[in-house]
Amino acid sequence: MGGQAHSSMWMELLDFPLPGRLSKPRTQGLTMVIDKGLGLHETKDLLHTAGAYIDFIKLGFGTSGLYPQDLLEEKINMVKACGIDIYPGGTFLEIAVLQGKLKDYLAYAKDLGYTAVEISDGTIKIPPEVRERAICMALEHDLKVLTEVGNKDPRDRVEVGRYIEQILSDLEQGAFKVILEGRESGKGAGFYDPEGRFLADDVEQVLAAVGDPQPLIWEAPLKQQQLELILRFGPNVNLGNIAPAELLSLEALRVGLRGDTLRPICRESV
Amino acid sequence: MGGQAHSSMWMELLDFPLPGRLSKPRTQGLTMVIDKGLGLHETKDLLHTAGAYIDFIKLGFGTSGLYPQDLLEEKINMVKACGIDIYPGGTFLEIAVLQGKLKDYLAYAKDLGYTAVEISDGTIKIPPEVRERAICMALEHDLKVLTEVGNKDPRDRVEVGRYIEQILSDLEQGAFKVILEGRESGKGAGFYDPEGRFLADDVEQVLAAVGDPQPLIWEAPLKQQQLELILRFGPNVNLGNIAPAELLSLEALRVGLRGDTLRPICRESV
Amino acid sequence: MGGQAHSSMWMELLDFPLPGRLSKPRTQGLTMVIDKGLGLHETKDLLHTAGAYIDFIKLGFGTSGLYPQDLLEEKINMVKACGIDIYPGGTFLEIAVLQGKLKDYLAYAKDLGYTAVEISDGTIKIPPEVRERAICMALEHDLKVLTEVGNKDPRDRVEVGRYIEQILSDLEQGAFKVILEGRESGKGAGFYDPEGRFLADDVEQVLAAVGDPQPLIWEAPLKQQQLELILRFGPNVNLGNIAPAELLSLEALRVGLRGDTLRPICRESV
Repeated sequence: MGGQAHSSMWMELLDFPLPGRLSKPRTQGLTMVIDKGLGLHETKDLLHTAGAYIDFIKLGFGTSGLYPQDLLEEKINMVKACGIDIYPGGTFLEIAVLQGKLKDYLAYAKDLGYTAVEISDGTIKIPPEVRERAICMALEHDLKVLTEVGNKDPRDRVEVGRYIEQILSDLEQGAFKVILEGRESGKGAGFYDPEGRFLADDVEQVLAAVGDPQPLIWEAPLKQQQLELILRFGPNVNLGNIAPAELLSLEALRVGLRGDTLRPICRESV
Repeated sequence: MGGQAHSSMWMELLDFPLPGRLSKPRTQGLTMVIDKGLGLHETKDLLHTAGAYIDFIKLGFGTSGLYPQDLLEEKINMVKACGIDIYPGGTFLEIAVLQGKLKDYLAYAKDLGYTAVEISDGTIKIPPEVRERAICMALEHDLKVLTEVGNKDPRDRVEVGRYIEQILSDLEQGAFKVILEGRESGKGAGFYDPEGRFLADDVEQVLAAVGDPQPLIWEAPLKQQQLELILRFGPNVNLGNIAPAELLSLEALRVGLRGDTLRPICRESV
Repeated sequence: MGGQAHSSMWMELLDFPLPGRLSKPRTQGLTMVIDKGLGLHETKDLLHTAGAYIDFIKLGFGTSGLYPQDLLEEKINMVKACGIDIYPGGTFLEIAVLQGKLKDYLAYAKDLGYTAVEISDGTIKIPPEVRERAICMALEHDLKVLTEVGNKDPRDRVEVGRYIEQILSDLEQGAFKVILEGRESGKGAGFYDPEGRFLADDVEQVLAAVGDPQPLIWEAPLKQQQLELILRFGPNVNLGNIAPAELLSLEALRVGLRGDTLRPICRESV
């Protein structure tokens, strides 16, 4: 079941129109899935069909706290067995911080079998020194650290320079990647306007400061967003908040097996 | 499999940010799912993952008439075994009324194992005395009665006073709850404008007349609608037409495990 | 499992409000599903629940090239066992043409068990003589041929007369049906404007030239599109790009078991 690269015989006959896609395990070209409550059959289906294309599965929001215990444990184990990292949503960790339970939270996440955590402040305010300590503690628990920058609610937006400082500081502290907020909807949060278009100025400033898109994971639930990022950065851009049902469609988009990325190759190059 | 409250060990560590959520069985805080054709594996997944959070499953529209007989019976039994009521969509009963087959319809629904019915006039016109008789007959068949008020098509809209009369009359006749129409889309029907916003005047008039939101189930398929109702009425507002894939997300919203309901607690209270 | 018409006992009690729906096998009233990556449990669920209502399953875009080999083969066999045709997305064949591998592509599709192919030029430009040859070669491989007309990208749109020539020529060459492009989104492609409304002038010209809607399959992923086509052409209009989760809803719409098609019968006929 899943895990290693698929050796489809189709693709011995045809070439991927967009070449260069990396296979797992990889540190670039990551795909992170948002899972809002898949059951065990659905999880098996996802792993079997698309496990070779998934690097991270996030159990969205605080849904981790709502599963029956046995189901949650079985699910985590199934995902890990396919060479996929799994972690609880960032909001759940924010609640632990809010309730003064961060240490217990990290220990229990590790016990349960989670391999990573997300450290964010999308909803609550977390002072920089607490964020740094959280990263450090998670690393001590041998958890992979993804941090996230960007507001969930438009009322909480701050200027982009603040986000840039966070990104650089998080990476320096040992974050594996920094996620750019996009929410499940891809609209009106983080680096998107209410219609889901990139806030171009903010994006360019972030890129100029970071230098290279590879430390970033773009939450990009909408096809148009995925398309723009692939056309700009290539098939190995890191993408997050991908819906489970969109996994093969996204992979097709990455390698040019879909009209939107095939077209620029065969029409616009003329 | 599902049915009773989940005793997640996570939630021995953390508190639900929005407290007071009732467990099943309950008469408040109901969640009604719209099922448009889940197969047996998908139904098992839904019940296993979120059965503790579901009170009613509706097989939408007249889809009840389109399943293979054995599958329908197995599905109904699986749902009931989790302590969840199950009923055919209101349109199906309207067709029975239209074809003069209401009595046979109710008897067969009961035989099949359905535990409830919905009595509506979203599409056809039903005189008040026929509606009253239908409620009475359904109760005699030992079926739980949900009624529904509100138009499906904007052309069929009548003034809100008529809907209020229906609500009060239905409750007096023995309806368990009255559903406020929202359709699957949440837009341009019942108590929503074409963009899915509440028709505020109508809503306030209904609330003033009924006095208490608890006899009502709000069809609220869109997250923004669920959010507004939870922020106004608390975690135990009755919500309907929830998509199966949104069950854990909605429950997270109800108990403050999602940014949208967590934020007012930790930011606006300051 | 699936395959033949369902003999629901419900429908011995009630009549379908919209009569005349044909059962499988049929050459009119076809429903074509777009499958973006269903796993084996999901495929079983779809076939069991709605197999009697599905004529074609398309593995969308080039996703055929992304499945694990064993899973793809098992899936194709499951679908065929239910009397349903299965074929890879048209973009995949376009890539074979582009890479000069059409002959091998068709032979391998046949070997794998596919029963049909789609011949399109939604993304690349294919000269008429190559298109004719492709149809001919596919027929020689004993594959059912669906062709497609209409642009995927608004920049590639040509005048409708060109599409009409293609339709008439494809049918003459032996195409089983001609698909009118609508994409997965139903918006801004083929015969739809960016809001998903029909380009009425183009549609009327196509209908005038073809004379009869039966040689056409309308890609109509949005409910409003399905509704308009059913109200105009009746329950046996050929519809494509239907999402798996919408199968029973669409069938309910076709036979009047949903408010949208029930209403015209019982309200507007008065």
